[in-house]
Amino acid sequence: MKNKFAERTHFVKPSETREILKITARPEVISFAGGLPAPELFPVEAVKDVCNKVLNEEGAASLQYSTTEGDIALREMILQRMKGIGISAAIGNVLITSGSQQAIDLTGKLFINAEDIIICESPTYLAAINVFESYNATFVEVAMDDDGMVMEELEKKLQAYPDAKFIYTIPDFQNPTGRTLKLERRKKMVELANQYDVLIVEDNPYGAIRFAGETIPSVKHFDTDNRVIYISSFSKIFAPGLRLGWICADETFIEKYVSFKQTADLHTDSFAQRMTAKYLKHYDMEKHLNRIKAVYKERCTAMLSCIEQFFPKNIKYSTPEGGLFIWVELPESVDSEKLLVECLESNVAFVSGASFFPNSRKKNTLRLNYSNMPVDRINEGMKRIGEVLNRELKREIR
Amino acid sequence: MKNKFAERTHFVKPSETREILKITARPEVISFAGGLPAPELFPVEAVKDVCNKVLNEEGAASLQYSTTEGDIALREMILQRMKGIGISAAIGNVLITSGSQQAIDLTGKLFINAEDIIICESPTYLAAINVFESYNATFVEVAMDDDGMVMEELEKKLQAYPDAKFIYTIPDFQNPTGRTLKLERRKKMVELANQYDVLIVEDNPYGAIRFAGETIPSVKHFDTDNRVIYISSFSKIFAPGLRLGWICADETFIEKYVSFKQTADLHTDSFAQRMTAKYLKHYDMEKHLNRIKAVYKERCTAMLSCIEQFFPKNIKYSTPEGGLFIWVELPESVDSEKLLVECLESNVAFVSGASFFPNSRKKNTLRLNYSNMPVDRINEGMKRIGEVLNRELKREIR
Repeated sequence: MKNKFAERTHFVKPSETREILKITARPEVISFAGGLPAPELFPVEAVKDVCNKVLNEEGAASLQYSTTEGDIALREMILQRMKGIGISAAIGNVLITSGSQQAIDLTGKLFINAEDIIICESPTYLAAINVFESYNATFVEVAMDDDGMVMEELEKKLQAYPDAKFIYTIPDFQNPTGRTLKLERRKKMVELANQYDVLIVEDNPYGAIRFAGETIPSVKHFDTDNRVIYISSFSKIFAPGLRLGWICADETFIEKYVSFKQTADLHTDSFAQRMTAKYLKHYDMEKHLNRIKAVYKERCTAMLSCIEQFFPKNIKYSTPEGGLFIWVELPESVDSEKLLVECLESNVAFVSGASFFPNSRKKNTLRLNYSNMPVDRINEGMKRIGEVLNRELKREIR
Repeated sequence: MKNKFAERTHFVKPSETREILKITARPEVISFAGGLPAPELFPVEAVKDVCNKVLNEEGAASLQYSTTEGDIALREMILQRMKGIGISAAIGNVLITSGSQQAIDLTGKLFINAEDIIICESPTYLAAINVFESYNATFVEVAMDDDGMVMEELEKKLQAYPDAKFIYTIPDFQNPTGRTLKLERRKKMVELANQYDVLIVEDNPYGAIRFAGETIPSVKHFDTDNRVIYISSFSKIFAPGLRLGWICADETFIEKYVSFKQTADLHTDSFAQRMTAKYLKHYDMEKHLNRIKAVYKERCTAMLSCIEQFFPKNIKYSTPEGGLFIWVELPESVDSEKLLVECLESNVAFVSGASFFPNSRKKNTLRLNYSNMPVDRINEGMKRIGEVLNRELKREIR
């Protein structure tokens, strides 16, 4: 048989994170590699109750085909939630997607022509890189500091690439760095987007998991020209297995998104949508979030203490105010992929940072996930990484 | 703001069927327009039971992120079901998708380069046309008779278009015609595909809903060269709202499908997958299917009687042995889109047939759905269409 694959298959590779996750699934491995929420916090009993409520009250309708746009009750609940971060929108601005991953994929499909320029944080979310690469995009990375993307650097890139299609940003507790874009920079980002006529794709799955500091309005809050596309998800605040995300954007964009969503999968699971809407109606989401935040704060604090205690002093790391991840920068001589191989021998894992850079692939970086591991395992695992790291650095000095 | 959309947005239009469905959602309209299964047959109590079973027995795991390939228990159940139509496959040949719509979309993404030739039945499934058009495919239609695609015509097209990428076929109770590809033609189709080195995409969502005649092995059963991609779905046999479909294909194809599925939505709702696997384990699917078949047979028979009784004699129509649809060919002078406008005034609806032809758009055709309407409403609605049709034909003679 001749090769039948389309040319675009060249741009798709299996997600490196997912491949690592397979290796680290062995129970003896303490894995900080994934990006999974803590399953022991999933509201299993409440889900059982709302499943029964949906089937008792809405019965067959919840199992039938439904509209592409998504369940109206769920979209109304989403509008309410978004108000809390300064987004005022109408029902026609919201499309339910099959996880925020689909929202990112539809965004690529809707906006990216081959070789279009996407401006992103350096580093940025791996699965978004994979999506945009699958549409043959070109990436331009913008440097970050502890307060997120640096606006002077963004402006330089916009000057250099005036035809850029959009700025892709994860403003809250970014994946992979855990850093948050500070308030003034959000305003400035929108100003620059207006000035240079580029779109902003604001990917915000973690914003509701803030366990320190003050809530900051979303980038979309400062949008004066309907050019910010806001993407979020129930994966980190409710249940990722249900694959529920959403897009909030200008109605002319949503209309096109709906067409692409129709061809992609007709609509998102209507039972999952109705069940989640019922949960939001009958249960106290803020109370649930407070439980998640308390646990993640404890785990994050423990991991930061371990870095202080077990890691060498000549490294840098982020101190997140929420979300799931800590970012570590090692001395430039260290290759974290080699470090990972040694760590796996000690039954501990992380994700090496290089693959989060679409172009610059800084090998001396790594991402640590704290959400899915109890404190005693965090202490033990971080001690093991520390030992490998100290050994590695000593070997280098010799 | 300058236009930001990608060029591929030109190839996507909103589904005409879905637009019609909106109009016909008024309760006073008797609609034969949709393609919805009968919701009164959904096993609501059983779904309630299996939701509780999943949450009691598998708890948090059912709400967590999962593998892209899909739930192993569900894939094993699918392997068992496929054996019944002569498909022997292994777990690595099966990928769970978010409805068979996603399976079709991923197939387009995986195989279609711009202007690639897709060979299809004339007419064929509207949403597949929309998907393949979104990848800028070129269609070549092959004539059908009462036994499905005509193999002599297929061979002519393969000779004329030796670089065709794949043959897209719906062999059982085709949408929109209700026709079934007969056994010898299935063998012949595979022979021709081997000879001309093209793939076959077998889209089979209706095969299990056979209420007359004998079961025929799938096209995939005759596959000697791993070139048949089999697509099916739980939408017509269990619950469409859950969006569960699957692809069964060669493992080298499945690996690439998995990469695209990862970027598309990571994985399909794992709770829905586990719930459906539990249903297949604890409930008698054949008994459930027998109930569906009995009801659809009654409705199909009633609709066929109505055609005999109320429609003019100079029309042709299909007599399906299963599935959801009857196809009607009117005298060539009649435009079914105009007919539909008149029928809507009488509060009855169907889908005019033109949009099921990617190129030839035969306007004198229409599709009738019987699965979602009780017999008394079928009788009433068909009488109304008959009245409009007779009036229309009389007007022409004058």
